[in-house]
Amino acid sequence: MLELYGFSVSNYYNMVKLALLEKGLPFEEVPFYPNQTAEAWAISPRGKVPVLKTEQGFINETSVILEYIEQTQPGKALLPSDPFERAQVLALCREIELYIELPARACFAEAFFGMTVPDAIKEKSKDELRQGFASLGRHGKFAPYVAGDSLTIADLYFFYSVSPACQVGRKLFDIDLLADMPAAKALMERLEQNPNVRRIAADREAEMPAFLAMIAAKK
Amino acid sequence: MLELYGFSVSNYYNMVKLALLEKGLPFEEVPFYPNQTAEAWAISPRGKVPVLKTEQGFINETSVILEYIEQTQPGKALLPSDPFERAQVLALCREIELYIELPARACFAEAFFGMTVPDAIKEKSKDELRQGFASLGRHGKFAPYVAGDSLTIADLYFFYSVSPACQVGRKLFDIDLLADMPAAKALMERLEQNPNVRRIAADREAEMPAFLAMIAAKK
Repeated sequence: MLELYGFSVSNYYNMVKLALLEKGLPFEEVPFYPNQTAEAWAISPRGKVPVLKTEQGFINETSVILEYIEQTQPGKALLPSDPFERAQVLALCREIELYIELPARACFAEAFFGMTVPDAIKEKSKDELRQGFASLGRHGKFAPYVAGDSLTIADLYFFYSVSPACQVGRKLFDIDLLADMPAAKALMERLEQNPNVRRIAADREAEMPAFLAMIAAKK
Repeated sequence: MLELYGFSVSNYYNMVKLALLEKGLPFEEVPFYPNQTAEAWAISPRGKVPVLKTEQGFINETSVILEYIEQTQPGKALLPSDPFERAQVLALCREIELYIELPARACFAEAFFGMTVPDAIKEKSKDELRQGFASLGRHGKFAPYVAGDSLTIADLYFFYSVSPACQVGRKLFDIDLLADMPAAKALMERLEQNPNVRRIAADREAEMPAFLAMIAAKK
């Protein structure tokens, strides 16, 4: 059986978990935290989560895990079969990761964990986030899903990366990054009602106190 | 015929160009510069390069273009057919992009274009680059190629992202990021001798003066 290494507070972990749940695949969750130790590196070369354990060994990097699951496992398709349409979905995923998730993530320490992020980094993130959301507004279809009429892995990126990025926008910059994107807002609300998303949210909430205590202990 | 939009100084552009040349595919190069205008956005949602024009339309994001070419075009395979081995190659690509290219890129303005990057950003990049190279040392095989015994798209990322990252390391931090990785250094020298790499380097050199003049005019 596939084993998913990581923890329920990680948004990247939850993207893969949602893919597995949407496909109806059996899998086991194995608690694993980002860590820079030889033991962790044997599982994940950069000590990050999530990691998928297969019969052949470990696979790291969310985008790679998602494609591997798509290529090898049964269940509902989350990528189109046509190569050009598939490329459009994957491009949306990369755009969300590179131009929304990463600049937002550079501010997570201040937005969520009571630490301070240098102004130079916040300014860079603010500028990149504005451009990243504008790009998503141009490329995303939101009809009703990010890439068109069915749920794809672009929606997993959208749900789990755009939500915290919006919180960063509100908390640190006092801006509503989805202000000009009503269809995207509607999709966010629609996805929140998905039973698998709700299950993942409950798991996240259950783990949050222990996670925050761990962060506080490291400060 | 496939059309590759971009410019010869871009390292991402050159990754795709090398893939096309290694596969022996016919393609046309179309000059296109990163740009935040409605005309550019119609080609590339985030106004970045490279972009591949196909019969069905434009595909953006280097990683997506490389997979699309692999999936649809004839010629030498640059990804393994086994899904697990394929995932290992793709994970190496993502690791090089996320943990080496991006932190190095945050410092390009100072390392290459005579501008100043805030210290907070440089410190973050330095820390990330050290960890990114250590991760590459753990996951890369360099036997003799990044992922094993044949050239894959991980070598394209390696060649075109690790080279400028090493220059950032030397110029801004006075460190040799490949110091502990002799097999990686040997691969870099081996790739420099590849005839297609040499052709791309010549094209880059020919375009460099015009590119630097354009950068200077924008300052």
